[in-house]
Amino acid sequence: MTISPEYLSTLRERIDRRLVEVYPHGPRLLAEPINYVLTGGGKRLRPILTMITAEALGTRDDRALHAAVAVEILHNFTLVHDDVMDQDRTRHGQPTVHTRWDEGVAILTGDAMFINALGELQRSSVAVTAMSQAFTKGALAVCEGQALDKEFESRSDVSLEEYRTMIDLKTGYMLGLAAELGALAAGSEPAQVDSVRRFGQLLGRAFQIQDDLLELFSDSGTMGKSLGSDLLADKKTYLVVAALDVAREEVQGALELAKGDLEAGMDVLRDLLQQNGIQAQAEGVVKDTIAQALDELNILGERKQSLVAFSQLVLNRKN
Amino acid sequence: MTISPEYLSTLRERIDRRLVEVYPHGPRLLAEPINYVLTGGGKRLRPILTMITAEALGTRDDRALHAAVAVEILHNFTLVHDDVMDQDRTRHGQPTVHTRWDEGVAILTGDAMFINALGELQRSSVAVTAMSQAFTKGALAVCEGQALDKEFESRSDVSLEEYRTMIDLKTGYMLGLAAELGALAAGSEPAQVDSVRRFGQLLGRAFQIQDDLLELFSDSGTMGKSLGSDLLADKKTYLVVAALDVAREEVQGALELAKGDLEAGMDVLRDLLQQNGIQAQAEGVVKDTIAQALDELNILGERKQSLVAFSQLVLNRKN
Repeated sequence: MTISPEYLSTLRERIDRRLVEVYPHGPRLLAEPINYVLTGGGKRLRPILTMITAEALGTRDDRALHAAVAVEILHNFTLVHDDVMDQDRTRHGQPTVHTRWDEGVAILTGDAMFINALGELQRSSVAVTAMSQAFTKGALAVCEGQALDKEFESRSDVSLEEYRTMIDLKTGYMLGLAAELGALAAGSEPAQVDSVRRFGQLLGRAFQIQDDLLELFSDSGTMGKSLGSDLLADKKTYLVVAALDVAREEVQGALELAKGDLEAGMDVLRDLLQQNGIQAQAEGVVKDTIAQALDELNILGERKQSLVAFSQLVLNRKN
Repeated sequence: MTISPEYLSTLRERIDRRLVEVYPHGPRLLAEPINYVLTGGGKRLRPILTMITAEALGTRDDRALHAAVAVEILHNFTLVHDDVMDQDRTRHGQPTVHTRWDEGVAILTGDAMFINALGELQRSSVAVTAMSQAFTKGALAVCEGQALDKEFESRSDVSLEEYRTMIDLKTGYMLGLAAELGALAAGSEPAQVDSVRRFGQLLGRAFQIQDDLLELFSDSGTMGKSLGSDLLADKKTYLVVAALDVAREEVQGALELAKGDLEAGMDVLRDLLQQNGIQAQAEGVVKDTIAQALDELNILGERKQSLVAFSQLVLNRKN
């Protein structure tokens, strides 16, 4: 089973239509940047996961839409604040909020977006309490992942275990939450809710490590763009953490080199990763993590097919 | 009736004890600044209002404590982010979070505090849905008030009506929310919930205008400290807005003067406010607003006494 491009378009349109209704009016310095962000593009993967999960588990009406939109706003809130913290100047090819307005507006915009996400969730007609608790937990996890990410920037002794905890919090929980809210909107049993949440979390972990691989080894011109800035900011990736473990001095040398000559440093790093089997190791972890994610879906029987198709959609992207 | 200092101390201790339990563990870059803020002082007026309201309306157990603590965390979240936006370096005599750590940590700390406030609210054993909706509404109002405050900095044509909307959102809603949550914790009727919310909002409005008056006309050495920085940042206060309305050029002259010589500018401003009757006008508005606030309490009959006493406590402060 695959998910047709037409079906994906329909879902995206429903989500996009609702997104512009969330905060149409309000003080200029909030309404303008909020709607700038919410109409600024993005693949809408997280709300699509919410909608597909709800549909797989038996909800064909609008019940999951508010929850899906809440997750998308939550995701965008983290981007607005992350962009300030990382001083990133563009996002989806457009100036970031703090670049177009200023840092104060970006902080306030993020805050109001998070609150609007909650308001949107509270519009759901089902399971509002359980959804709100899941939402709070997921949002806190993202903050904790971001805090660990920041802490790791000043450390060179991060273990793979610590790195995994960080990406699980920063990336995995949000996809887990997206799936969980879909299941809650469909009124599913707790065991199913737990399974789809773990599916989303594992998919998020696989996605992140695969992203690291694509950044370094993809031929596409669209990848590699952010890896440079990540490396220069001493951000840890799975590949770097794993390589530091087996060839510390050479890897540190390559990272130093990259600060003066990014291309040269990345070439040395690529060679080191291949020679030490880190590329193969990471590819193995991605494969294994996807298998674990799909295992979680067995509890759904035949209804798992659209979620399997969604995981392929996410992981087969080339950029 | 007055509220005894002993009773206030007891309430503060219960609130402070719970505040340190909210986020004891977590990533270092979150747990440390969060607990730094939550143990850093403050009068705890908002959570005390929640507790006193709940008690006045019949709840003598711990039901209101989680809601009270949630309001205090919400208040402190706004301070952490406001301090970044306004580049304020100290708060309660201690370095602000972005000064002691950095801006990224302060943004993330505020985000995580807001989420923890929600988590705390969700621990309430009563009326969680109604409380969460009130909380979301109140938090959005604070953001909107802050956005208007920022917008007004670049405008010299702000009307008293617009100014009142701004302080109602920025200051009034939070006190209104504090009282509302107390009433919801006590399981009160909607009419009573609405009344205590409006009481809190009006009390907040009176408090803010009185604060502006104290800043300019109090003899106390502890006041006046923040007015200077507010004036220099072109922040609007009730007095300045009202004065601009009747003596635009003179007031703008005084504000210009203050940028070079703060004391001299404030002296001219004081004279202008007295000559034009603005001081007396503002004092009248405070009195009238307090009367309106107290009127809202009539629906409570004799149970209103502790809230009347609370309003005196808030308004009789000299600093």
